[in-house]
Amino acid sequence: MADPQAVRTDARAHHDPAVRGFASDNYAGAHPEILAALTLANGGHQIAYGEDDYTDHLQRVIHSHFGAGAQAYPVFNGTGANVTALQALTDRWGAVVCAESAHINVDEGGAPERMAGLKLLTVATPDGKLTPELIDRQAWGWEDEHRAMPQVVSITQNTELGTVYTPDEIRAICEHAHERGMKVHLDGARISNAAASLDVPMRTFTSVAGVDVLSFGGTKNGMLFGEAIVVLDPDAVRRMKHIRKMSMQLASKMRFVSVQLEALLAKDLWLRNARHSNAMAQRLAEGVRQVDGVEILHEVQANAVFARLPHDVSERLQKRYRFYFWDENAGDVRWMCSFDTTEDDVDGFLVALKEEMAR
Amino acid sequence: MADPQAVRTDARAHHDPAVRGFASDNYAGAHPEILAALTLANGGHQIAYGEDDYTDHLQRVIHSHFGAGAQAYPVFNGTGANVTALQALTDRWGAVVCAESAHINVDEGGAPERMAGLKLLTVATPDGKLTPELIDRQAWGWEDEHRAMPQVVSITQNTELGTVYTPDEIRAICEHAHERGMKVHLDGARISNAAASLDVPMRTFTSVAGVDVLSFGGTKNGMLFGEAIVVLDPDAVRRMKHIRKMSMQLASKMRFVSVQLEALLAKDLWLRNARHSNAMAQRLAEGVRQVDGVEILHEVQANAVFARLPHDVSERLQKRYRFYFWDENAGDVRWMCSFDTTEDDVDGFLVALKEEMAR
Amino acid sequence: MADPQAVRTDARAHHDPAVRGFASDNYAGAHPEILAALTLANGGHQIAYGEDDYTDHLQRVIHSHFGAGAQAYPVFNGTGANVTALQALTDRWGAVVCAESAHINVDEGGAPERMAGLKLLTVATPDGKLTPELIDRQAWGWEDEHRAMPQVVSITQNTELGTVYTPDEIRAICEHAHERGMKVHLDGARISNAAASLDVPMRTFTSVAGVDVLSFGGTKNGMLFGEAIVVLDPDAVRRMKHIRKMSMQLASKMRFVSVQLEALLAKDLWLRNARHSNAMAQRLAEGVRQVDGVEILHEVQANAVFARLPHDVSERLQKRYRFYFWDENAGDVRWMCSFDTTEDDVDGFLVALKEEMAR
Amino acid sequence: MADPQAVRTDARAHHDPAVRGFASDNYAGAHPEILAALTLANGGHQIAYGEDDYTDHLQRVIHSHFGAGAQAYPVFNGTGANVTALQALTDRWGAVVCAESAHINVDEGGAPERMAGLKLLTVATPDGKLTPELIDRQAWGWEDEHRAMPQVVSITQNTELGTVYTPDEIRAICEHAHERGMKVHLDGARISNAAASLDVPMRTFTSVAGVDVLSFGGTKNGMLFGEAIVVLDPDAVRRMKHIRKMSMQLASKMRFVSVQLEALLAKDLWLRNARHSNAMAQRLAEGVRQVDGVEILHEVQANAVFARLPHDVSERLQKRYRFYFWDENAGDVRWMCSFDTTEDDVDGFLVALKEEMAR
Repeated sequence: MADPQAVRTDARAHHDPAVRGFASDNYAGAHPEILAALTLANGGHQIAYGEDDYTDHLQRVIHSHFGAGAQAYPVFNGTGANVTALQALTDRWGAVVCAESAHINVDEGGAPERMAGLKLLTVATPDGKLTPELIDRQAWGWEDEHRAMPQVVSITQNTELGTVYTPDEIRAICEHAHERGMKVHLDGARISNAAASLDVPMRTFTSVAGVDVLSFGGTKNGMLFGEAIVVLDPDAVRRMKHIRKMSMQLASKMRFVSVQLEALLAKDLWLRNARHSNAMAQRLAEGVRQVDGVEILHEVQANAVFARLPHDVSERLQKRYRFYFWDENAGDVRWMCSFDTTEDDVDGFLVALKEEMAR
Repeated sequence: MADPQAVRTDARAHHDPAVRGFASDNYAGAHPEILAALTLANGGHQIAYGEDDYTDHLQRVIHSHFGAGAQAYPVFNGTGANVTALQALTDRWGAVVCAESAHINVDEGGAPERMAGLKLLTVATPDGKLTPELIDRQAWGWEDEHRAMPQVVSITQNTELGTVYTPDEIRAICEHAHERGMKVHLDGARISNAAASLDVPMRTFTSVAGVDVLSFGGTKNGMLFGEAIVVLDPDAVRRMKHIRKMSMQLASKMRFVSVQLEALLAKDLWLRNARHSNAMAQRLAEGVRQVDGVEILHEVQANAVFARLPHDVSERLQKRYRFYFWDENAGDVRWMCSFDTTEDDVDGFLVALKEEMAR
Repeated sequence: MADPQAVRTDARAHHDPAVRGFASDNYAGAHPEILAALTLANGGHQIAYGEDDYTDHLQRVIHSHFGAGAQAYPVFNGTGANVTALQALTDRWGAVVCAESAHINVDEGGAPERMAGLKLLTVATPDGKLTPELIDRQAWGWEDEHRAMPQVVSITQNTELGTVYTPDEIRAICEHAHERGMKVHLDGARISNAAASLDVPMRTFTSVAGVDVLSFGGTKNGMLFGEAIVVLDPDAVRRMKHIRKMSMQLASKMRFVSVQLEALLAKDLWLRNARHSNAMAQRLAEGVRQVDGVEILHEVQANAVFARLPHDVSERLQKRYRFYFWDENAGDVRWMCSFDTTEDDVDGFLVALKEEMAR
Repeated sequence: MADPQAVRTDARAHHDPAVRGFASDNYAGAHPEILAALTLANGGHQIAYGEDDYTDHLQRVIHSHFGAGAQAYPVFNGTGANVTALQALTDRWGAVVCAESAHINVDEGGAPERMAGLKLLTVATPDGKLTPELIDRQAWGWEDEHRAMPQVVSITQNTELGTVYTPDEIRAICEHAHERGMKVHLDGARISNAAASLDVPMRTFTSVAGVDVLSFGGTKNGMLFGEAIVVLDPDAVRRMKHIRKMSMQLASKMRFVSVQLEALLAKDLWLRNARHSNAMAQRLAEGVRQVDGVEILHEVQANAVFARLPHDVSERLQKRYRFYFWDENAGDVRWMCSFDTTEDDVDGFLVALKEEMAR
């Protein structure tokens, strides 16, 4: 295989690779080690649709993280991972208990309802985290045909609000769910950040804690694209391959998803990236705490900082660095760090924040 | 950006890049020029979900091929492109007229029905090609509520049987459909091969011929993954972005899809690749015609050769080269060439075929 | 047509027609005038699927109530009416803003999500009633593809909590919704009770107030079965007949639904029934207020009384009269009156309540 | 309960009960014995949603026809029965093998696809009847995720073309399906006519023959509305009640469906009606055979006569008697007899046919 750098391409660069902001970890590109892995997997013919050698090898990598019973099903994106996983965990009449703030409820364009006919039974939470008590607000009425049957509890680790469940908290949720005949799905779009934050292996709060199916997130942690549904309890699901295909999430050249996942997970790239983005968020939070008039809203446990500040300050600051309002009426914003955020990025942003607060 | 070749990655090579077969054009990897383009687009932050500079530039590339009114919506895969496009072209009560052999009918795991609630009104065809007369077998009863309403005609170019519509044939279908208030969708998973075969620009048999929405195929022609829904008549659809998102086909780091499409389409890579795979199929067909006892089934117009030969010969041959039975009972097989098929691959295969026929 | 009373039938009576309770208005049977109407419509042949003379005449009856532009589409039941109506009011990407307590959210087995792919955007309400301010908690983000698009506000009159919107309240909701490009659906499973309570024609708080589509409830007000989707603004919907059919709500012998609706609505049966059940609820509420230790929970505006009392009292009382817990943990119960509830039924129940409270 | 005949109703008669045609058995009204049964079930309170005494008793009636293991789930209409039953028999990834001419494929507005996401795998048949050989054209590829998985064979008895499967034919289909892990659904919209034609109990070609779930048709055989899903093998399905509810087919006042089914099935009304309509079809067919230039198309085995005659004759005849073209281009028509068709109706029609043929 020729050196891609040496190969002429008709595509051109259209952006300034030196510009970074705090909008989202999916504004970042791919980690160079991920890109390098693509070259390894290229060339020659490999069976399409997942029967390739890279997807085969991926299983062993996944076993090393989640145990020998785990099975990885690479898919394209997070919504696809979640909707495919939830279909596998439910019957036609099933419903999913989740936090009101869950990505599946607020950020997936209704994909769970439209593509899978899933009813989401939502619960308001203070910090994006469910508890057995909160789950019980919706987990009842299994015999009542007028009610969509609660069959799954779906939690997000780390949550959409940047908070992190402890392994014990997840274990308690899983026990509670299993006692009631429900399964547990974990949306791990940022699972690496959670593991880095907790400083434990990912299995500690997934397979070991009792989670049945995991949406493992790769894109936000340095992949070009791609996630994996990781089935932790194979008895919890049936016909994953059929469901993935009919959910339009079956990659023909799957080797290119699997080799990225391998590059991320074979050794410690997943953890290096996550630790770095978490550390950048800590640096940012520490800096922000020095700025009068800016309030940090949730505990900063992963790579997100949520803050409240004057609306006009945010608007001026957005002209210098990209980021999003979280609740525009309240003046709440979200600042995300990613694997490629630098200390200089954070420090420059803090200077800008101070300047705009002072105007 | 560092040279990916020089970057250490924890992934390893697991396959022999010298091995190729005739199973499918998606057994091939990515063209080196495509891989090189990814590096260009990497680095720095780009707005996620399609607001990036690469997706923006892609629009101009698409205009150069399909006209200034065309709009490209990158998606992950062909099933995703088709199901998203067909939802955009139909109301809840709409149905799609297609050939019985259409990929959307036989190869997508029921995704059109399950994900989009689409009724497919199928028509048996001799060669995978619809005609106005064949369409009329299903295009009727628009006012009859007992019938799913025919709102779209979906054709495949080139077809699943390797045959190619002429521009006039497509124009006739479009006129016929439009006169009846129906729209036309073209599944172009192998559109480049069709254009190469016809030796005309793609627009000649799409936008110029009256096609409303195109599923442009990139994966089978040298991309790692990725297709584009190309809306040729913007009045034919609404809210493409909402439909793509809810169909789980919205890539967060879309720049990596768009830059591949740019690399393919900015100049002539799409055509070089397609001409090559078509030429390899011609070389293969010519060789096969010299072998007594092997019958070529359809006209070889693109990169597929369909043949009938003794079942045991096929089975022995499959131990040497990967390929699929098309109709195992009939002894029909499909041999696909791809952008990376070499003359030596073809000649070696022909030797093997002759050997196995002689045993 | 022979007198049904005189006709031998192989069916037998299996219940005691003297026993009534307070569980639900659909525990009651059919009003004798409704039953009598069925005989009128019987005999001879009538075009099936809604082209009959009874469905035709029904349109004129509906005009007299809701205005000359109204169109009635008879269906089988309330869930069918709601899901069909909401499909007609939304695109594939649409969502419905409703109260958390709405029947479509909590009592239809997920039918809106499963059958129609609808996302419900729910709002907590104190009394089951939406307001423009409450609607705004979910009515935003129309251009955001990550969000299901709010296209409809659905309200229930009277609400599931027995409360009644004033015409002005509904007008304000309709204006608010229409200004934002949304339509308004009214779930009128008990609309007659609301009209009786408000002492205004039904049009005052529906067509005149700006409601676009109404689910008119017949079953709970004395019909054997059957509701009607009443389209008040024909421009708000398309292809109602196709949607009704594909939603499995098209009665072949529709004359038997339509003639029941005619019997209810041609003169004042709908109002007599509703006034009576409302009056019985008032009588019940007045009696309950005399009982120490029993708290009435919501304003009694229609035919439901919600009360809180000791759990064990409820359990003993349920052995004498059927009724449901509404929130078993809180000790809340619902007592429904129907068109056939008698003063003696109410008085007997009050005696029983006092007896059980005294034990 | 007052005599309905003696009760004043505000509804009025709008049609001439002496006019009958040959359009469909659902153009007929209700049999007087059915209407009489409604009165029996009226009055007093009965638990809603199927926990009433009539639905309870119905189970015993159903046992007498289909065996002690059978379970009846009353629903509103045939499309509802079919779509509910097929959901119960399939997983999310399941598909249904059926004849191209099946009602579920051509006459239900796409309800199976839209409401249940079902893929129909259709087979062309000469006479509307499947055979093991025809089934095998679609029953394959269970492990292939690109293919919707064939999980059910659905047959119609009698077929949409008026032909009748013998018990042996159905037994062979059931054995064939079961050997392949598939279930069998029988759409019995006109099952009574088939039983009358075969002169065997219904169980002979359903439960005894191996059918798993039956859509028992009542409406076309003299009921006002209502069908029953009859589960013949309870192990073949799960959670019927949840599926019925979410499919919008759960009647609140179910006693009024169940008592009609009881009236039909408790003794022999179902058979009297079916024999009569079959006999009328035979009388009609015999008369038609005397008319030169009119060809009878399928064997007349139940209550339908399919014929081919000059198009202009049909058009003139339609002005005198209602009936439908079946294939207008071919000049094919369908003449249906019903429980209330009289010998005079048939003879009058034959006179008219001869007159119009002679013009």
